[in-house]
Amino acid sequence: MRKIEHLGLAVLNIDQAIKTFEDLLDTPCYKLEEVESEYVKTAFFQVGESKIELLQATDENSAIAKYIAKKGQGIHHIAFDVANIEEEIARLQAKGFQLIHQTPKDGADNKLIAFLHPKSTEGMLIELCQEK
Amino acid sequence: MRKIEHLGLAVLNIDQAIKTFEDLLDTPCYKLEEVESEYVKTAFFQVGESKIELLQATDENSAIAKYIAKKGQGIHHIAFDVANIEEEIARLQAKGFQLIHQTPKDGADNKLIAFLHPKSTEGMLIELCQEK
Repeated sequence: MRKIEHLGLAVLNIDQAIKTFEDLLDTPCYKLEEVESEYVKTAFFQVGESKIELLQATDENSAIAKYIAKKGQGIHHIAFDVANIEEEIARLQAKGFQLIHQTPKDGADNKLIAFLHPKSTEGMLIELCQEK
Repeated sequence: MRKIEHLGLAVLNIDQAIKTFEDLLDTPCYKLEEVESEYVKTAFFQVGESKIELLQATDENSAIAKYIAKKGQGIHHIAFDVANIEEEIARLQAKGFQLIHQTPKDGADNKLIAFLHPKSTEGMLIELCQEK
């Protein structure tokens, strides 16, 4: 894991949250992106070498909607940057980690991604990200 | 905010979680610290310019114990590095943010810290950190 690529924050109202995080971080949102396959709208901020990604559900079946229904708005996942996602998946599987995605899939922000199952990571939702 | 200084992860069993995160991050835990005033044991990992801080409660009145009782193990807070914490507190108060600590206090890892109230940050617990 080379760095924290981004943190995914689950929010109810992304327009309101963008204003809050622009004020908080003292930096403008630099990108909006809707990921239809995941039923989310996203908004990105840069902080040092990492990004903050706000996530609002666009459908009640979105993982973000289910997360908020269960836990409220909050820090949904940590994404780590990796050089080679297929090698990293193989390394983690050999260590006994359970992957939600055993092969990488397309994610937001021009990335290949794979999520680990929280059962094997002390309840934390962890994403691997490789720049395409 | 200059970078993500660390992420605080609330865990039930820090010894087990250290093993999990050493395997996950492929890097050793470099420091253990008990913060008696906060009733927590902590363990630190370096990832790029940021740290992962595992937090286990040592008392049922610890904020970490209460968080886990309510939400389960999870990503408890985001700490941002700031150059001057008093100036940053003043800037955020002027923007309408509510601070839990209106003046900095001593934190783990040789830092001055202050937390913002989640009511004003879309439910996220945000910490400001300045190196002493």
